[in-house]
Amino acid sequence: MSTITYRSAGVDYDPLDAFKRYCQKSAGTTVGNLARLGFGEPAGIRGETAYLLETDDAYLAHVEEGLGTKVLVADAMYRLTGQSFYRNIAIDNIATIANDLCACGALPVSMAMFAAVGDTAYLADARRSEDLAAGFAEGCEACGAVWGGGETQVLKGIVSPETMVLGGSAFGQIRPKHLRITGDVRDGDAIVCLASSGVQTNGLTLCRAVAERLPEGYLTKLSDGRTYGEALLDASIIYVRFVAECQSRNIPLHYAVHVTGHGWRKFMRLEAPFVYRISRIRPPQPVFDCIAKAAGLDHREAYGTFNMGVGFAVYVAPEHAEAAVACAGECGYEAWLAGRVCREGDRKAVIIEPLGLEFGAETLAIR
Amino acid sequence: MSTITYRSAGVDYDPLDAFKRYCQKSAGTTVGNLARLGFGEPAGIRGETAYLLETDDAYLAHVEEGLGTKVLVADAMYRLTGQSFYRNIAIDNIATIANDLCACGALPVSMAMFAAVGDTAYLADARRSEDLAAGFAEGCEACGAVWGGGETQVLKGIVSPETMVLGGSAFGQIRPKHLRITGDVRDGDAIVCLASSGVQTNGLTLCRAVAERLPEGYLTKLSDGRTYGEALLDASIIYVRFVAECQSRNIPLHYAVHVTGHGWRKFMRLEAPFVYRISRIRPPQPVFDCIAKAAGLDHREAYGTFNMGVGFAVYVAPEHAEAAVACAGECGYEAWLAGRVCREGDRKAVIIEPLGLEFGAETLAIR
Repeated sequence: MSTITYRSAGVDYDPLDAFKRYCQKSAGTTVGNLARLGFGEPAGIRGETAYLLETDDAYLAHVEEGLGTKVLVADAMYRLTGQSFYRNIAIDNIATIANDLCACGALPVSMAMFAAVGDTAYLADARRSEDLAAGFAEGCEACGAVWGGGETQVLKGIVSPETMVLGGSAFGQIRPKHLRITGDVRDGDAIVCLASSGVQTNGLTLCRAVAERLPEGYLTKLSDGRTYGEALLDASIIYVRFVAECQSRNIPLHYAVHVTGHGWRKFMRLEAPFVYRISRIRPPQPVFDCIAKAAGLDHREAYGTFNMGVGFAVYVAPEHAEAAVACAGECGYEAWLAGRVCREGDRKAVIIEPLGLEFGAETLAIR
Repeated sequence: MSTITYRSAGVDYDPLDAFKRYCQKSAGTTVGNLARLGFGEPAGIRGETAYLLETDDAYLAHVEEGLGTKVLVADAMYRLTGQSFYRNIAIDNIATIANDLCACGALPVSMAMFAAVGDTAYLADARRSEDLAAGFAEGCEACGAVWGGGETQVLKGIVSPETMVLGGSAFGQIRPKHLRITGDVRDGDAIVCLASSGVQTNGLTLCRAVAERLPEGYLTKLSDGRTYGEALLDASIIYVRFVAECQSRNIPLHYAVHVTGHGWRKFMRLEAPFVYRISRIRPPQPVFDCIAKAAGLDHREAYGTFNMGVGFAVYVAPEHAEAAVACAGECGYEAWLAGRVCREGDRKAVIIEPLGLEFGAETLAIR
């Protein structure tokens, strides 16, 4: 059986990366407007998860995100089973925005949703519409933000009539300024991992390709008795409350990683050369086993693509590791001390010791 | 020849409105989060063009918008003529966001773009990608904002491989607070209209249906010798500079209208009962003649759907009318004193006197 990779599943990222480079270059030409408006741009902020504006007493944060193709799984499951997972999908949409925001220490203040359908008939299903609306509100509550507005459009001829595009934006703040997570990582820092709920919002194109290979598609039973589709659609975890609580308990977060595209390679997102030694891993959810087997992915491919049970991680001083784990637990997150950040000369790598895996610096080029 | 209406062009807004109502109801439940974050929500802000957050010394504004289907026209013209209008499309995308923002008196600070394609091959065209990036930056410059970031996604199976979804968001501010445009309209206020560049970003689904009726489609010649497609793709005008300059010249804007969907009915967007008497109109661009003839629209339908040459309007005290017109002119906008706001008991209407047209309150239900 052949392996399914992202390229074979129809996503060639080269033109996308070129477009992003054009955009970054053009965007850079507009920075001169900030001073007149009374704001500054922190050095090195381009390419970070959220755009920050500096004021005298705070950073303001602005993020735009999209949900990706996960809604197609909910559409398929709704057709197959009559069960609506759109509430979860709406929470996923909030999670993609809010988790990027809090990874720099910003807490979301207002969220705005973007939805586009190819045919208004898609929204004529009251259950779908109500579940989406309820899920957006639930997601906003989970991150302590207000749902401020949004836009819904009919894009006939652009969006497939059977589904929708979801995305949105957040405005947030870091107040006071020292709460900003800057990447001030030191040799010996502890890596604290927070569990994901499953695939969350990452790798869904590949997950959908897998469904086509499984004997009963989305209705294939996993080792825990749930269906593949149901497991894929577990709502993403929103990590804002954890970051907020660490801030109020004075647990300094040296860095935070929202584990999404590029899987565990994201642990070395920081430019500075460090080796991230993961010594304790927990078994990923059964859905990952199913994906890896059906797609023919070895550990290296699986951990380099999916979150494999870890949705968020923070790097803290070793003396704060226990407090960070306890803080997460008291906020309802599953968390554990997973490893150490080590300075080993110029070496940059993520090493998953229990699996004998190493990802070198050359495997992650996202800046 | 039958008339083309929005419903016959495939857009039934009822399910969309129902979805928006679910969303507004759910969004309202999240307002309690604001106080803890140190913000207030101004009364009556829901349903306005931008969401506002109140602080001690400013309002912060957050808008999410989408471009709609105009990109399909650029795609068709690119195929037909090899001419790229994507720079204009990108400016249009900024305009939809920024004009909504400045209609409440907010000046954009940071803009973030959202782009989704069905196939990365669409962005493999370097000319298209470069033009889009250049246009985004040009649009940000035109509104004095910084291009802070954004998100580009590949949504195979959701977005048609031949085109893209564009949208985005802005964070802005009103500082000091008295510059907020609140709808403090008075009997006798002057209506100052600012010219549009053409259809801008409104009514494009109908414009595309019209192209199918025209003898040479998008290449049909208008009365001014330009093609229909070329005229449709004139970049939208961004009105931010006008609002900013009125603010710095101390010309109080009692209300501002971004003339988009619902055409000139938008003049009565304000809840309070007023009669908006338009006494001076200017001939709309030739593209509107072409649309009205081909779609079989009478004046009532045309002015109730399209901007008909007016993209933005402000209501000011009569003694400030001349200064507002002059201010617009000095900023490079075409503007004129177009009429008066009148208190006539409980009557609410837009009256276009030179055309003998009247739109009653019942023709606009957007709240």
